[in-house]
Amino acid sequence: MHKTVLVPVADGAEEIETVSIVDTLRRAELNVTLASIYQKGPESPIIKGSRNINIVCDNYLESILGQDFDLIALPGGLKNAEALSQCQSLIQKLEEQKKAGKWFAAICASPALVFEPHGLLKGEVGTCFPSLAEKLSNKSKIEQRVVVSNNCITSRGPGTAIEFALVLIEKLISAEKSAQIAKSMLAYIPK
Amino acid sequence: MHKTVLVPVADGAEEIETVSIVDTLRRAELNVTLASIYQKGPESPIIKGSRNINIVCDNYLESILGQDFDLIALPGGLKNAEALSQCQSLIQKLEEQKKAGKWFAAICASPALVFEPHGLLKGEVGTCFPSLAEKLSNKSKIEQRVVVSNNCITSRGPGTAIEFALVLIEKLISAEKSAQIAKSMLAYIPK
Repeated sequence: MHKTVLVPVADGAEEIETVSIVDTLRRAELNVTLASIYQKGPESPIIKGSRNINIVCDNYLESILGQDFDLIALPGGLKNAEALSQCQSLIQKLEEQKKAGKWFAAICASPALVFEPHGLLKGEVGTCFPSLAEKLSNKSKIEQRVVVSNNCITSRGPGTAIEFALVLIEKLISAEKSAQIAKSMLAYIPK
Repeated sequence: MHKTVLVPVADGAEEIETVSIVDTLRRAELNVTLASIYQKGPESPIIKGSRNINIVCDNYLESILGQDFDLIALPGGLKNAEALSQCQSLIQKLEEQKKAGKWFAAICASPALVFEPHGLLKGEVGTCFPSLAEKLSNKSKIEQRVVVSNNCITSRGPGTAIEFALVLIEKLISAEKSAQIAKSMLAYIPK
């Protein structure tokens, strides 16, 4: 059974982060669902990214709220993070994920604008997009490109998105798998 | 006047490469058009990426063939590169681009499967996805992450896509602009 990953998004999602998470994790054969947080409509769940690239999601969040996921991973983008932070059902799902000791992750604006204000970083250390660093209670690892803290994984921005995804693979599968995918993608991992 | 960039794609386009090019170049305020090479239909020009992420293009290639672009940049993905290589109108546009001394670029499978067989690498040195390296006539810089040769810029895969896009910005605008965008994205550039 392949492990399952939920990637919730709204308009304003940073495209490189969104696509780097989904693409890289699918390369590791993880079962990834890109889900729009908007209300289910007659049309396809399309979100408009921060740089005007429209991406078709796999489903609406409301249609899969009952499913369990081994990981919930949030892309950034300012407006996306603000919208995710307002989505009650997502916040509840993240709280349950943390309580259950399961993986939850966020990059760029989302650690600061979603995790921090909803107490999901309580007892954790994390990182985020530099301009939002002041919002994090614990800034001790703010300059690290990817931070693993218990079951919480955070990262900084578009340029760290593949590294972030590779750490997610390492934790959900293995360091070997992560290294194999990194090599096949020509990913450069700073030491 | 912002410089113009054409990014033509088909089904099988590598999503990280496609989005990294469009997103990064738009951050530098370049005027980027993501164009589907498929025949214009009643529906939006959506392409299905190599890892099953569907991306909505800005237009159909056939609708903008008469426009001039300062750069034509091809994402990779095996099936995408094969489809681009079969697209006569695109190949003609690339030949005119090279003849006019204007920028043309490709990453991953596209240097080997589009540029090389159509003579666009004649007199140039380039790089491509490692498993396709044997197809390039001139392999002298095959291990370089981004290769600039006259007006032809090539690169290797998803993990080099942001670096590739940053070099495109450097050539279309300036090294200063490229460095500024790299910093704002937290991009790591191997020396």
